[in-house]
Amino acid sequence: MSEMRKLGAAALIASTLLFGVSAGLASSWTGDRASPIYGVELPEGYRDWKLISVAQENGRNNDIRAIVGNDIAARAFRDGTRPFPDGAIIVRLAWRYESSARNDKVFPAPQSFVAGAPTNVQVSVKNTKRYAATGGWGYGQFEDGRPNPDRTLAQSCFACHQKLEALDPGTDMVFTAYSR
Amino acid sequence: MSEMRKLGAAALIASTLLFGVSAGLASSWTGDRASPIYGVELPEGYRDWKLISVAQENGRNNDIRAIVGNDIAARAFRDGTRPFPDGAIIVRLAWRYESSARNDKVFPAPQSFVAGAPTNVQVSVKNTKRYAATGGWGYGQFEDGRPNPDRTLAQSCFACHQKLEALDPGTDMVFTAYSR
Repeated sequence: MSEMRKLGAAALIASTLLFGVSAGLASSWTGDRASPIYGVELPEGYRDWKLISVAQENGRNNDIRAIVGNDIAARAFRDGTRPFPDGAIIVRLAWRYESSARNDKVFPAPQSFVAGAPTNVQVSVKNTKRYAATGGWGYGQFEDGRPNPDRTLAQSCFACHQKLEALDPGTDMVFTAYSR
Repeated sequence: MSEMRKLGAAALIASTLLFGVSAGLASSWTGDRASPIYGVELPEGYRDWKLISVAQENGRNNDIRAIVGNDIAARAFRDGTRPFPDGAIIVRLAWRYESSARNDKVFPAPQSFVAGAPTNVQVSVKNTKRYAATGGWGYGQFEDGRPNPDRTLAQSCFACHQKLEALDPGTDMVFTAYSR
């Protein structure tokens, strides 16, 4: 092995170790239950958390969604507190956006869309220390209760939320506003 | 005044009194805060009740909505219990269905619809005794926290929910199913 090759191999091993260690410290990776990069888990009882608002996405998503929050997040949403305090957790549930032929028979015109099968659940956790590199937010996407292991997907969360903040400063990278 | 006319007038007065009394007994009308016919009030704390599902209506309504329930209703929804037990209260919140130009600038394609200003809140209360004449359900529609006083509107609730049950027996006249 040439000196250059040895150096290259050593650098690769060192960077892998360093990256592995820092990623481990930053995310407290817990294997099956946590999202890649951020180590975000699906919070217990989130399905019954307080409703913040609803939304609907056409295009590739084609879903109808509800945004719920834990008590810390719900209070901040209601009071308009930005940035969100540490401990705030926002969960976005989504289901297939489906036309309801049954309801349309009851209603005066074809007009009814309802929630079909669940698509995925996205979780945002506020922790300014742990997630300092990503504006204080850690992210995870879950399907059937399990985290999606795709690192590129996990990275796309911050990229998109960051884009929002650049376009509309003061949102703390959160799309949703409280619906009264 | 002819005998027929006298009889007719007496019958009208009698029926008005009877209807008035029975409506009074049945609805415990409390004036400002309760819906006509049913005497349904906006339940305290409903905004933070458990989320059942979401939906969207085009046409004249043009809204996006969330259906929430008190604990009795939420349990019945989750367990698929039909008919709903007495004490179940279902609340449907709705907001203008609005395209979000801001979100569409962040997302890869124009696709985002969000909740705008609130439109109205509809409440269904299960009480098999009190609302025996309308399948056990009492109804009310509220705008800005106040009941809509239109009796025709209040009557239309039962007409529509009854139509659902005829078309799809076993729903207990409830459109919404629980979204997991």
